[in-house]
Amino acid sequence: MVYELFYWPTIQGRGEFVRLALEEAGAQYVDVARGPGGMARMMAVMDGPDHPPFAPPFLKAGDLLIGQASNILMYLGQKHGLAPADEKSGLWVNQLQLTIADLVTEAHDSHHPIASSLYYEDQRPEAKRRAADFTETRIPKFFDYFESILGRPEPKDYLLGDQLTYADLSLFQLIEGLRYAFPATLARIDAGYPLLGALHDRVAARPRIKAYLASERRLPFNQEGVFRHYPELDGER
Amino acid sequence: MVYELFYWPTIQGRGEFVRLALEEAGAQYVDVARGPGGMARMMAVMDGPDHPPFAPPFLKAGDLLIGQASNILMYLGQKHGLAPADEKSGLWVNQLQLTIADLVTEAHDSHHPIASSLYYEDQRPEAKRRAADFTETRIPKFFDYFESILGRPEPKDYLLGDQLTYADLSLFQLIEGLRYAFPATLARIDAGYPLLGALHDRVAARPRIKAYLASERRLPFNQEGVFRHYPELDGER
Repeated sequence: MVYELFYWPTIQGRGEFVRLALEEAGAQYVDVARGPGGMARMMAVMDGPDHPPFAPPFLKAGDLLIGQASNILMYLGQKHGLAPADEKSGLWVNQLQLTIADLVTEAHDSHHPIASSLYYEDQRPEAKRRAADFTETRIPKFFDYFESILGRPEPKDYLLGDQLTYADLSLFQLIEGLRYAFPATLARIDAGYPLLGALHDRVAARPRIKAYLASERRLPFNQEGVFRHYPELDGER
Repeated sequence: MVYELFYWPTIQGRGEFVRLALEEAGAQYVDVARGPGGMARMMAVMDGPDHPPFAPPFLKAGDLLIGQASNILMYLGQKHGLAPADEKSGLWVNQLQLTIADLVTEAHDSHHPIASSLYYEDQRPEAKRRAADFTETRIPKFFDYFESILGRPEPKDYLLGDQLTYADLSLFQLIEGLRYAFPATLARIDAGYPLLGALHDRVAARPRIKAYLASERRLPFNQEGVFRHYPELDGER
């Protein structure tokens, strides 16, 4: 089966979490909106009769049309060995993914605290206040949590131990995005999170991920995605 | 099995979505933090060795410790007939739940657009701006979506048709919360969403839910939860 991924064609955004899982799985997929006529097709599916998604990303997998990144990842994880088969571990991976997704939303809101429909420039003072809290309080709180998970009961390669799951791919992307958006902040706190840094490097070195990151399929970060670099939001204390 | 629900003892918050599913299921459960010594026990579990959750709510189900409201609901849905058994419908219900959860987060951020750790009074001007967008743009966008789902291909009793799922309970609670927090806004747009209003009333009239809502187990809305009523955030246009 060839999957069809539907996501905005010019940004990594939330679609990137799905792309990473597809790439690690070695799955065949088409990034629909990046091809000719793709945006029109994406909009048509959103207006379609069968389980229309509220927003991209969504994935067409044969008869299935699946929306919400964490939901897509749960599906792909089960199909491609990127999640453990037992109920307890499956729930745990989904829980970790949802916690990662919460910080992704906060990363977005750090530059758009008032309204997604407004430009950043129209909410700059509010963004500065929110980003100060985000960098000083929220990133460390979440990083403390994930570092502690990686350290229990002893340092592990991946969140669940030896086995890579989609939550590890997502954690890699979260770190990548935050390093792009908040380089000064991340440089300042980096030494406190050796297990997170090691996980990031371990994922980046996986053959399929490494090839993907070096390919044209990987869009560069930019100022339209979830992770944006505004130096004034990354002030050192 | 007697479930143990862990959530802040004085608010509905995100724990309420779990409470509603437990109540509709007729499940036996203890709302741990509302009992003697419960807060200390909740904190101990969060510091515990086994799959510590990032934040409440979380559910202890025998050997399982499950965090993230949407994840808990997926579990309860499967165990108690509050979700369909087939893969396609199961993914769809989870997708709808995650979309509801997105609006719940936005409802919270309408009064806390800068930082959860600050008082509302310390972010009042920003809240006023965010709430204006929330009431004028975001609530209608999500309500349009759910109304259209309820209307496809023809008006249905519940999101999936005849069968109640946990997503219906959550949609009820979302409407309840928004009516409490933004009564003027909801009164203004209510007529445009007859199917949502009917679903709300249908859920409220279910025997177990009706009994629960009338009981002391149902905490009243207040100014500490996700849904808060600040009249200045509910201005009519």
